[in-house]
Amino acid sequence: MTDTINTGETRELIASNKVEGTAVYDMGGERLGTVNNFMVDKRSGKAEYAVMQFGGFLGIGADYYPIPWKMLNYSTDRGGYVVDLDKDRLQDAPRYADNDEPDYNAGYGQQVYSYYGVTY
Amino acid sequence: MTDTINTGETRELIASNKVEGTAVYDMGGERLGTVNNFMVDKRSGKAEYAVMQFGGFLGIGADYYPIPWKMLNYSTDRGGYVVDLDKDRLQDAPRYADNDEPDYNAGYGQQVYSYYGVTY
Repeated sequence: MTDTINTGETRELIASNKVEGTAVYDMGGERLGTVNNFMVDKRSGKAEYAVMQFGGFLGIGADYYPIPWKMLNYSTDRGGYVVDLDKDRLQDAPRYADNDEPDYNAGYGQQVYSYYGVTY
Repeated sequence: MTDTINTGETRELIASNKVEGTAVYDMGGERLGTVNNFMVDKRSGKAEYAVMQFGGFLGIGADYYPIPWKMLNYSTDRGGYVVDLDKDRLQDAPRYADNDEPDYNAGYGQQVYSYYGVTY
């Protein structure tokens, strides 16, 4: 998708497969990881979580951190997402290993959203 | 993601990369194509279009058809999306070639949604 000159009424859309793999930085510009994928409500089409991938090597041993979608802010300067998070904050954050994906139910959602202080 | 036994309060979520590549069928069970990707409002996280891919061979010469997200209905029986569309209806539908992605602005959105009789 090319960024063209848009009028104010334009909604900014991004392709799902462009979100996946995009780098994530903290506010200070340190690279935290990448967006692995995101979880969408089938019916409403609303993205609930972005799943960030940190650590590991070539995806081996990496952990996955679901974060509320609204925490992502795209920065054209950085060419990636900037989140108000740092490594300390992530140390106790909800996460799972590659082979251990959670059941994304309402209880899990509340746990994740409340960890980051975001209304579910 | 495994389908586990869920309570009524569970929201049904699907991973973005599981949507991509999923087959699309018409109401009669004929395979129309696949979901190539989908377009998401950066800010709200709302999926606006699913982009279906029809025709072509291994993606070469294929055309892309944006359709309103809410037209997709996942069928566990078929293992894919079922849409209330057929090939006749698609003949005049908004589409674009691989190298000619449109500017997804409000005017384009209105055009696509109104073609399918869906409120934008």
